[in-house]
Amino acid sequence: MTRAILIEQIRLKQSYLCVGLDTDPEKIPHSLHAFADPVFEFNKRIIDATLEHCIAYKLNTAFYEVSGAAGWESMQKTVEYIPSTHLKIADAKRGDIGNTSTLYARAFFETLSFDAVTVAPYMGEDSIRPFLEYTNKWTILLGLTSNAGAADFELQSHRDGLLYESVIRKASQWGTTENLMFVIGATRPEWFERIRAIAPDHFYLVPGVGAQGGSLKEISEKALNKDVGLLVNASRAIVYAGTGDDFADRAAAIAAGYAAEMAVYLKSNASV
Amino acid sequence: MTRAILIEQIRLKQSYLCVGLDTDPEKIPHSLHAFADPVFEFNKRIIDATLEHCIAYKLNTAFYEVSGAAGWESMQKTVEYIPSTHLKIADAKRGDIGNTSTLYARAFFETLSFDAVTVAPYMGEDSIRPFLEYTNKWTILLGLTSNAGAADFELQSHRDGLLYESVIRKASQWGTTENLMFVIGATRPEWFERIRAIAPDHFYLVPGVGAQGGSLKEISEKALNKDVGLLVNASRAIVYAGTGDDFADRAAAIAAGYAAEMAVYLKSNASV
Repeated sequence: MTRAILIEQIRLKQSYLCVGLDTDPEKIPHSLHAFADPVFEFNKRIIDATLEHCIAYKLNTAFYEVSGAAGWESMQKTVEYIPSTHLKIADAKRGDIGNTSTLYARAFFETLSFDAVTVAPYMGEDSIRPFLEYTNKWTILLGLTSNAGAADFELQSHRDGLLYESVIRKASQWGTTENLMFVIGATRPEWFERIRAIAPDHFYLVPGVGAQGGSLKEISEKALNKDVGLLVNASRAIVYAGTGDDFADRAAAIAAGYAAEMAVYLKSNASV
Repeated sequence: MTRAILIEQIRLKQSYLCVGLDTDPEKIPHSLHAFADPVFEFNKRIIDATLEHCIAYKLNTAFYEVSGAAGWESMQKTVEYIPSTHLKIADAKRGDIGNTSTLYARAFFETLSFDAVTVAPYMGEDSIRPFLEYTNKWTILLGLTSNAGAADFELQSHRDGLLYESVIRKASQWGTTENLMFVIGATRPEWFERIRAIAPDHFYLVPGVGAQGGSLKEISEKALNKDVGLLVNASRAIVYAGTGDDFADRAAAIAAGYAAEMAVYLKSNASV
C-alpha cells in the first residue's frame, strides 16, 4: 500500500485507527471452539465488525506462534481475509544479519501478504535494508516503546542524544517517508514534540492506547502532521471489549468510539 | 539443560561446536524433494551425521518462517528429533513488551521444546524477564553482533561505554550464569578481552565462524574461561559443505574438523 492510498483511506474514513488482532486462544468465547480454527473465526468476526472504523490491522506474531504451525495457519488465513483497503501489519519485531533479514522480509511480504512489518533496530542498517527494498511495503522500526524497559537503553544517553533519537535520526536516512514508519509508544506523549522535530514527516505507529493507558487526545494533538502521519493501535481494549457471544458488537462499539474521537482531532488539527 | 550438564557434555566430547540448521529450502539436494518434508529430511541427516562432533544445534527461525506454517512444522519435527544430550537453540531474536514476550517464551520453550532462545535487548528488562523465568532454559541476549550494522548502534558511545557493553553489564544483573548467555559475533575477536572483563563467567554463543570469516583459533584463545564458557556456531560452512547426495558426509567432515581443532584449544587453554 502506498503512502498516498493510506492517507486517502484515512481521510475517507476520518479515522487513523489500527485494530490489534492480539488474539489469545485462551480468551476466545467458548462458542467459537466448535469451529475448526477458533482464532481465525474470532478474527474474521472482529474484522467484519470493525472494518468501517479502522484503516489498519496489526497481528502480533507472538499470539500466533504460541500455537505453533496451527497458529501460523490462523495468521495466514487472517491476513488473506483482511481487504486490500486496509494496511496489514505484522508486529513481528524481527531483525538479524542481512541474509537472514532477507528471509524474514520474504516470509512476511511474500509467503504471508502483509503490507508492513515491525523490526528492531539493534543490529543496524543491514538488518533493516532487506525490508526497505520492497516496493509499496512498509518497514516499521522500533523507536521509543511503551513499556517500562524503554528506560533501560532507549532513554539512555547515546552519542549526541538519547538512543531512540539516534535510531530515528539514523534510520530516517535509510528509508523514506514512503517506506519507513516508527513505533512510538503512547505512554510517553510528552516526548512527541521532540520526536516530531527529528522525523516531522514520517508516519508513527502508536501502540499503548487503551489497556496500556496512553491518551488518544494528547497523542493526537502532539503527533498529527499535515499528512496525518499517525496510526494509533488499540488491541486488548477492542478485541476483548466483551467476553460473551456479543464480543464483535462490543469490539465495534469501542472501535467506533475511537474513530469518532479521531474524526474530531482530524478536524480540529490545523495542520491536517 | 543445566549449565552443569552443558559443561559435562562439552568435556565429554571435547567440543563446543554448535551446528546451525539454517536450512534454505532452495539449497536442499534435489533427491530429497521426493520426501514429504524435504527440510526435515535434510536436517535429520545433518543431525545424524554431526551428532558426535557437536553439543548444540541452532535453528534460525527465518529459514523456517519463509515457508509459513509448513516451515513451523519442519522446525517442530527437527527440535523433537534432536536428542536431549544436545542444547536446542531457537535463533529467533525476539523481544516485545512483557505480556507479548511471555507468549514468545511459551512458544519456544513449551509449544516447541527448545532449551534456549536468542532475544534482542532494545526494549529492556521487561521484554527479557519472561524468558528468564523458566527453569533450566536459557536466554541468549544479543550483545555484539557479527554484521557490519553493529557499527550503527552497538559500537556507539552510550552512557559510560559502548551500547553493547551497557547491554551486557545491565543484563548480567537480570539473569545469572545459569540462565543467561550472550551472542558475541566471531568477526570482532579483538573485542573479546573487553567483553570477558564485563562478563567473565557467562557462556557466549559465537556465530560468524566459517562463511562469515571469524577465526576459531583467535576466538578460543581470547574467550575460553575456566568453565569453557563458549559455544561456537557454524551454519553454512557445515550444512552446505556439499551440494550433492553426500552432503551429510561432507557436513560431518567439516564438523569433525572444527571439533578436532576445539579439542586442541581446550587442552592448551590453561584456564579450562
